[in-house]
Amino acid sequence: MDSTEIEQFLKIKKSEIEEQLPEYIAKLSAPEKLKEAMTYSLKAGGKRIRPLLLLGTLHSFGKVEKVGLPVACAIEMIHTYSLIHDDLPSMDNDDLRRGKPTNHKVFGEASAILAGDGLLTLSFQIIADSMEEQLSPKQKLALISGLAKAAGPEGMVGGQIADMEGEGSVLSLKDLEYIHIHKTGKLLAYSVMAGAIIADANKEQLYMLEQFAHHLGLAFQIRDDILDIEGSEELIGKPVGSDTENNKNTYPALLTIQGAKEKLSFHIDEAKRFLYSVDMKHDILNYMCNLIASRDH
Amino acid sequence: MDSTEIEQFLKIKKSEIEEQLPEYIAKLSAPEKLKEAMTYSLKAGGKRIRPLLLLGTLHSFGKVEKVGLPVACAIEMIHTYSLIHDDLPSMDNDDLRRGKPTNHKVFGEASAILAGDGLLTLSFQIIADSMEEQLSPKQKLALISGLAKAAGPEGMVGGQIADMEGEGSVLSLKDLEYIHIHKTGKLLAYSVMAGAIIADANKEQLYMLEQFAHHLGLAFQIRDDILDIEGSEELIGKPVGSDTENNKNTYPALLTIQGAKEKLSFHIDEAKRFLYSVDMKHDILNYMCNLIASRDH
Repeated sequence: MDSTEIEQFLKIKKSEIEEQLPEYIAKLSAPEKLKEAMTYSLKAGGKRIRPLLLLGTLHSFGKVEKVGLPVACAIEMIHTYSLIHDDLPSMDNDDLRRGKPTNHKVFGEASAILAGDGLLTLSFQIIADSMEEQLSPKQKLALISGLAKAAGPEGMVGGQIADMEGEGSVLSLKDLEYIHIHKTGKLLAYSVMAGAIIADANKEQLYMLEQFAHHLGLAFQIRDDILDIEGSEELIGKPVGSDTENNKNTYPALLTIQGAKEKLSFHIDEAKRFLYSVDMKHDILNYMCNLIASRDH
Repeated sequence: MDSTEIEQFLKIKKSEIEEQLPEYIAKLSAPEKLKEAMTYSLKAGGKRIRPLLLLGTLHSFGKVEKVGLPVACAIEMIHTYSLIHDDLPSMDNDDLRRGKPTNHKVFGEASAILAGDGLLTLSFQIIADSMEEQLSPKQKLALISGLAKAAGPEGMVGGQIADMEGEGSVLSLKDLEYIHIHKTGKLLAYSVMAGAIIADANKEQLYMLEQFAHHLGLAFQIRDDILDIEGSEELIGKPVGSDTENNKNTYPALLTIQGAKEKLSFHIDEAKRFLYSVDMKHDILNYMCNLIASRDH
């Protein structure tokens, strides 16, 4: 596909994901206030980069993307729950997310905690109950186990604690990478791996794609840090320079902005090297690499 | 078994559960602070009634209880996470739980939220990764799906929101039952159902046990409400009369204490009627019925 076709593909898949997400909530038999709070954050926009990575990986293996839609939605629910809990007063205490009031600002703190708990729990139910006949029970279990590892104490939750603990002190590059690999990297990597599991990739392909996703995840975070300095306030949806102001540990703070850009290039190159070592179509994932390296929000 | 043997059985199983629970945390590769916070609440005691219901059900079907231990621990982790989040300042704002400082009092609010998130996520990983060969992938998926339903928006999380929304107004018996069926009933019922799923019970047995567990769950909650009035402060670990003082919706408030006791008897009788309609051993589950009806904490 040329880049116009890829953009079209990503646009269509994004709207399929965004159509499906609130459907899962709408059909729940649960109190309306909870459903509203869960739906509010699911509908609050975002790049949907994780579910798109999953569907893009399926496309790369020549598989019908539809079979991956439930797992793609489950990942986005986990990501959404993590943003709701991160924004809470006792965590980052953010009033705005993507330019809109955060969940607890609209629904109150208790409801926001429960909306997050609800999304986290529902994500596992969606995979376990997925009716896709192409998925075997063994594949579903591998998908559930992988999601729990990526999101739980050995993944995202662990990274979040490490991030909090590192606040106020200057971290080494190694410590900073630990935080990012766990806080954002593992779930991004899982998005690719989930696509590969659904596509029945072999062990070597899984390994190469894990390396690909690892470097992609770090590149994603470095770009985030650079955008905080060089980005447009309107596009990133928060004040430029807020990381510096809050004395956050970032790649530019540790490596200078030039050093951070070199690091970004390195990880994008590595990601592509592993990507092209897998015998499959590369166009969409290659495009997403470039997108992540140069995104403006 | 006579009652001494049953007491011995429950005591041994309880200590097996309490030995296993922290093991799951100890082997995690995660920041120490997170592991400490998760372990603190897992070790904070409690009756372990949910995992014991699961193991008791397995015993009733003549199955080796060991095969159910991972799922039993997963249920107790879900229960523990729900207590940590319920105790938070923005929820019930409790400083003490079972006579000990609550999780956020010891580790801070952010860590308590994350410890809860970690326990919730880990519970699904434990079932998905369980090495018990007697469990088929299909059984594991049924166990995961059932746990997510019991704990999520259609279960516990939904009940918690309904409880919060009902605060300050006088509820009908129907609304009060909705709250309790969801907030505590569904997870208690799942504990029995999980045992039945592992024991490969047939459809009719599953239905009868679901009815049994439904009534048991309501009885459990009514006893809780009665204890708040007639219990010993030392044994229940919180001030007697705190529900009345906080204008909580309870069975005695709605039905008088005598009415609540009659309701309790009714649900215990119904539970036993369904229990004895299932062709299996009844001694342990019958004993647990009596325990729940007359417990002093």
